[in-house]
Amino acid sequence: MIRAHDPFGSASACDALLFTDLVDVRWLTGFTGSNGWAVLTAHDLVLGTDGRYGDRARAEAASSGATVIAETSRVKLHHRLIGSLTGTQRVGLDPVSTSHAEWQRLAADLTLEPVGSLVGLQRRIKDDAEIERMTVAARAADAALAEVEPALFASVDTPVTEADIRTELEYRMRLHGADDRSYDTIVAGGPDHAARPHHDATNRTIVAGDTVIIDVGALVDGYHSDMTRSYVIGEPTDEQREIYALVEASHAAGIAALRPGISARELDTVCRDVFDQAGRLDWYPHGTGHGVGLQIHESPFHSQASDEVIAAGNVVTVEPGLYRVGFGGFRIEDLLVVTETGSRPLTHTVPRPFPG
Amino acid sequence: MIRAHDPFGSASACDALLFTDLVDVRWLTGFTGSNGWAVLTAHDLVLGTDGRYGDRARAEAASSGATVIAETSRVKLHHRLIGSLTGTQRVGLDPVSTSHAEWQRLAADLTLEPVGSLVGLQRRIKDDAEIERMTVAARAADAALAEVEPALFASVDTPVTEADIRTELEYRMRLHGADDRSYDTIVAGGPDHAARPHHDATNRTIVAGDTVIIDVGALVDGYHSDMTRSYVIGEPTDEQREIYALVEASHAAGIAALRPGISARELDTVCRDVFDQAGRLDWYPHGTGHGVGLQIHESPFHSQASDEVIAAGNVVTVEPGLYRVGFGGFRIEDLLVVTETGSRPLTHTVPRPFPG
Repeated sequence: MIRAHDPFGSASACDALLFTDLVDVRWLTGFTGSNGWAVLTAHDLVLGTDGRYGDRARAEAASSGATVIAETSRVKLHHRLIGSLTGTQRVGLDPVSTSHAEWQRLAADLTLEPVGSLVGLQRRIKDDAEIERMTVAARAADAALAEVEPALFASVDTPVTEADIRTELEYRMRLHGADDRSYDTIVAGGPDHAARPHHDATNRTIVAGDTVIIDVGALVDGYHSDMTRSYVIGEPTDEQREIYALVEASHAAGIAALRPGISARELDTVCRDVFDQAGRLDWYPHGTGHGVGLQIHESPFHSQASDEVIAAGNVVTVEPGLYRVGFGGFRIEDLLVVTETGSRPLTHTVPRPFPG
Repeated sequence: MIRAHDPFGSASACDALLFTDLVDVRWLTGFTGSNGWAVLTAHDLVLGTDGRYGDRARAEAASSGATVIAETSRVKLHHRLIGSLTGTQRVGLDPVSTSHAEWQRLAADLTLEPVGSLVGLQRRIKDDAEIERMTVAARAADAALAEVEPALFASVDTPVTEADIRTELEYRMRLHGADDRSYDTIVAGGPDHAARPHHDATNRTIVAGDTVIIDVGALVDGYHSDMTRSYVIGEPTDEQREIYALVEASHAAGIAALRPGISARELDTVCRDVFDQAGRLDWYPHGTGHGVGLQIHESPFHSQASDEVIAAGNVVTVEPGLYRVGFGGFRIEDLLVVTETGSRPLTHTVPRPFPG
């Protein structure tokens, strides 16, 4: 989890960086507790936390070389933080992940410089240990979905609800080795629910004729997986077949295009063009994917607004979909590691949209 | 969920309040989406959110009387927010739940006044609909624990891990009507893990001689429940019986003292005194409980640092415990509604610490 990247690359005006976002703190130090900060200078890495976490912080942060400060009193911990920055001129801090109250408290003693989430950019390149965790997570989701798909198709005779499917998936991912779900599993069925790209599973029964979208991932040692498969319950209509084939084509085009050097925007364009040429672009309300790691959504984001470039070692989703109220929707999403020449998938469930 | 309380009580210098904390926004308007803010003036309640949530916001906020603004563009939504505050002199905003970046953006157009989480105080008094949700949540946790306890006691012959128990509890709460767990279920077994008031369930096997702490709650329609029970696996030692009896006595004393008008500090003192008189106060590293509602931890907090007073309609935990590395630990926690004359429990699992 710790690499020799230089997080100072884009903040050379600062001679120290203070991290208050717990995901950044974890990535820098290995510490997984719920309260802590990290200070990085050219020479030192310091991890501060409260008294509850002293032992755990020292154990988890040992291999990062971080010096651990643990203080039971919040006031003392604040003074130790200020002390660890004595002699620095300008301290870089992300104003988006820091509360105004905390910023004001720090600004009383320090010269703060607003900087972006530098670790967010550094974190994009995954090492083997990180990819291994995501591989195990993706495998747990594959295994759970394989066990649940039969009940979904059988819903045409033996009704199940969206929530039933959701509950079984999240339970079975743990039986297959996940620490937890990666996010609230989406099970969206029928003309209204499947038309929403994000939907909370409800007690709606899944019935014949429904399109169903299942978006499911697992969490392993802090790392996420992400996958979506789509289905038709009972015999598909011609329109359902046509729309599904379009999503399939867009997804295939995106994966074919995924390689180091392509921009996140261009990747989005490749998937979008398939829909545009079929006159269905107005059924596509979201971007084509995002990076995954210690966060389920992290840089890069594949959209027309992005100026990021995909690099080897990125782990990203490709997830085009089409949605329309009254019809429902389909999305196909895989999680892929960008390799030197292209990509390889971490998610392996074979798309099986139609029964039989 | 909406009451006639005056959130201006302690912020009379402001003529408008802006809420950015999603729990506050939900409590004020009923809106459950993941992005939104609310503006409250003496005459108006306005809910702002992004384009994805327009329909949902209007449906959920209807009974609150809030005017809904939905804008797909973040910039436009910001302008609508500023517009809804035109003519106000001072806008109250909580600097703890607002990022520094957001505060700066707003301060460019508004005169901001830092205020505490007013809704956090107003939210303390629960109405019948809120208590009903917590009742259903507590019942789901009771039912799940009843199904899992036999496997825990049987662990003396048929080993199970902390994670096994955790996974079954969270799965079964949903089968018994919960939307989800209330928080990451704590299953802590043995001389080290049970000695930590907060512990993530691991793959450690529960064995004879262990003390085990299970802290489990459910979520129903946004409202939480919270309960802890403690166990000994196999025949208890004299010391285990003695420490358990102390926790039981402290818990009983706390519940006997719980009524409107007692201060949160005094409630903490009542439980603490039982341990102090037995010379075990150094085994008690935490406060005696907290309020529960739309948040699992909310005002009041029963500790020596509190200046809050318990009122009828509060829903709070009483949860003394004793912990020592090498011994393990015990905690007994119930969730109770404060009534006009005392309290009544929402959690009903009969403590059954020892087998047989």
